Parts: sequence; structure tokens; C-alpha cells
Amino acid sequence: MKRVGILGGMGPEATILIMQKILAGVAAQDDSDHLPLIVDQNTQVPSRIKHLLEGGTVDPAPALADMARRLVAGGAEILAMPCNTAHHYADAIRTAVTVPMLDMIELSCAHAASLSDNGIVGVLGSPAVRKVGLFDGPLKRHGLTALYAQDEAQTLAAIRLLKSKGPSPEARAILKTASEELVQRGATVQLIACTEFSLIPEAVSAQANAFDTLDQLVKAIITQATQ
Amino acid sequence: MKRVGILGGMGPEATILIMQKILAGVAAQDDSDHLPLIVDQNTQVPSRIKHLLEGGTVDPAPALADMARRLVAGGAEILAMPCNTAHHYADAIRTAVTVPMLDMIELSCAHAASLSDNGIVGVLGSPAVRKVGLFDGPLKRHGLTALYAQDEAQTLAAIRLLKSKGPSPEARAILKTASEELVQRGATVQLIACTEFSLIPEAVSAQANAFDTLDQLVKAIITQATQ
Repeated sequence: MKRVGILGGMGPEATILIMQKILAGVAAQDDSDHLPLIVDQNTQVPSRIKHLLEGGTVDPAPALADMARRLVAGGAEILAMPCNTAHHYADAIRTAVTVPMLDMIELSCAHAASLSDNGIVGVLGSPAVRKVGLFDGPLKRHGLTALYAQDEAQTLAAIRLLKSKGPSPEARAILKTASEELVQRGATVQLIACTEFSLIPEAVSAQANAFDTLDQLVKAIITQATQ
Repeated sequence: MKRVGILGGMGPEATILIMQKILAGVAAQDDSDHLPLIVDQNTQVPSRIKHLLEGGTVDPAPALADMARRLVAGGAEILAMPCNTAHHYADAIRTAVTVPMLDMIELSCAHAASLSDNGIVGVLGSPAVRKVGLFDGPLKRHGLTALYAQDEAQTLAAIRLLKSKGPSPEARAILKTASEELVQRGATVQLIACTEFSLIPEAVSAQANAFDTLDQLVKAIITQATQ
């Protein structure tokens, strides 16, 4: 088994969630059947949202590159990052180390392509993800078009609520409204594309065929680490 | 804030649990308010129970020392280990690195001393912990005597059940019987001294004044990391 390095802490709840999903994804009789991980629960990465949305001047890329180097120093043989928005800085991470990094965005777009029948994919993510077009290019390469919920202030409010208070009825209501809007605009296939929303997947519209990008990453981690 | 290195994976559920407890123990508005951790979810540490109870020849100490070195290479400034039994090998860890390691056993014995009125402390832990006297010395230094449940085969069966299947009524019943026996023998103050039992703290006797050694470690982590 290969040791998987997790660039985590963005947010810390999502990092715990991916560890739980990896644990649940492996059939085990004893500790040693589970995958070895080294997890950088780095809560001090400069805010991606501040940098991409609010004109912040502190670039998170050097901190992410440093995390990758420290994880490799700690024994990581594959890297994975349970944060959609931070994938905007993936090139800086890949340049910093020689071990491979799994691409949650590409994995998710490929899965969306296997589900979509009308080519429209809803992206339930942070406004920063929409602004930098993180999913647009990869979806386009699969012949798909990204659609985003219109009330970005509400989306951002939900993410902030989840970061500060954890799951709440208010956050669920915002995610539900966004998901229902996307269904009505033709995006039945939807990506839960913010690891804060991964904490409340039950809030998406019952009419949506939604999946969590985090789950695609978990599948790839288990496959790659046990190869 | 100091980055805390977690010697984890013994078992992996307990490592996730301590991360949740650290998260819950810190008031936060945003990711950056939380403690930075680097977590070695090392599921491949040779079995402590095999080595200490079953005559196994593979000593876990070198693997633990290697974890400590890798965590320090990954940026850890303080070390903590959410596994009671593995504290038997703490000297090998302390020798391997220069950063301090918190002592879950000593922290818990000191807390037990603050609670006990008759000097008898029940230890709900693995038979390996009893065999090597992990708590006996530290409790004695606080003027306390350790008491253990008598049916060690059952205790071990519960730990194995928790490692393979997670919390179950069978595991809870065994822990409850052990805890009730200790109360009847005079040990009202009890340590939940196996991180597998940390997954089912509700199973202890209602008459016991029990606390989880993991919670003492969490308190010390938060205090030390924020100093």
C-alpha cells in the first residue's frame, strides 16, 4: 500500500470527512487493512476566497507548495487535496514535488460526463470556483457546459456559516435553493463542488442527480493507494 | 500556534476522533482559528497487542520512532499519540526526536488523583496495558492503586470487535460489565484507557465517575499548541 498525503485543513471538517470516507471505503478486520495516510491539517493556509474574490494580496500557492514538500518529507507517495477551490493552485503544488497529485476536478468532470444526457452540469461550489473557471475548462473537454446558481452572495454566506458553525438549517436551505434552481435551468447532473457542502449533501434537490467531488477523490485514493 | 504532530492510526477511528475533539475544543469563526495538525494515520504500525500479549517478535518501537521523525520532518513542534498501549514505547519516541511529546498516561493519572477519594482507580484498557503496568507506576506516584477488570479475554474480544466492526451492542455490553465490576470492587473513578473504548464512552457504568484519557490529551494539546 502507498502512503497518501492529504493537503488538508481547507476546511478542517472536510479533512476529517475524507478520512472517514477513506476508512469506510476499505473493508478491514484490523488496523493494518486500512490505508496509511499522512494528513496536513493545515488551518493556516491563506484564505482562497479572500485571494480570488476579495482582492486579497496573500497568495495561498506558496503555503500549498510548502505543504506538499512537508508531506513528501513525511513519507507521502501520492498527494490528494480535499478542497475544490484550492485546486486553482494545483500547478504550484505539482511543480514543488515529484510525487503525483490526484486531480479531484478532472476526476469529477469525467464522472459527470458519464452521467449527463444533455451536456449541462450544475456546479454547487464557491463563487471563487466560478470566477476562476476551475470546472469550465475540464467540463468543456468532456463536451459539457458548467452552470452556476445565480445568488452568489447566498452561496458564500452558506460556506461561511458552515465554516463557523458547522451544518445548520440555514446553510441547508441555501444549498437546496441553489440546487433546485439548477434543476429548473436544465442541470440535473450536479457536482457538490465545495467541501463545506460535502458536510450537508442531503440538502440538494431531490430532482438532482448530484454527486460529491470528494467521493470521486476518495475512490481514486483507494484505487491508487492499493495498486 | 504550534503545529501538533499526531502519531495516529492505532486505531484509525481513534485518530479521527481526536481530530474531531480538537476541532470541537476550539472556538472558531474561520479555518484559521483551528489548530494546525500533522497527522500520521499510520495503519501499518506492528500490532502492540501481538508484541506485548502474544509473544510476537516484531517490536513496534522502531516504527513509532520513525513516525516521530517523519512528523518532525513534516513540521511538527509538539507530538501526541492517541493510543494508550503504544505509550509503553514512549521512550523510543522521545529518544528519536528533540520536540516534546505529551504524556497521555501521566496527564490522566494526575486527573484521576484530583477525582479519587479512596485511592482506587479502575483502568478500562487492553490486557497489554495491565500486563506491562503502564498505569501502575504513574498512579502509584500519585498515591493511587490501579484495578483491572478480571475477564481479560472478554476485554480483548471487545477491542477486536471495535477494530473490525466499529461500535456494536456486543462491545458495549462487555465494557459495561467490566465497568460495573470495577465499581463493585471500589473503583468508582475509572479511566477509559483504550482509544477503541473511546468510541463507546456511553457504555460505562452509570455509577462510575469515568473519564477518557483521550480527553486529557486533547486538553493538553489545545493548551500547549496555543501557548
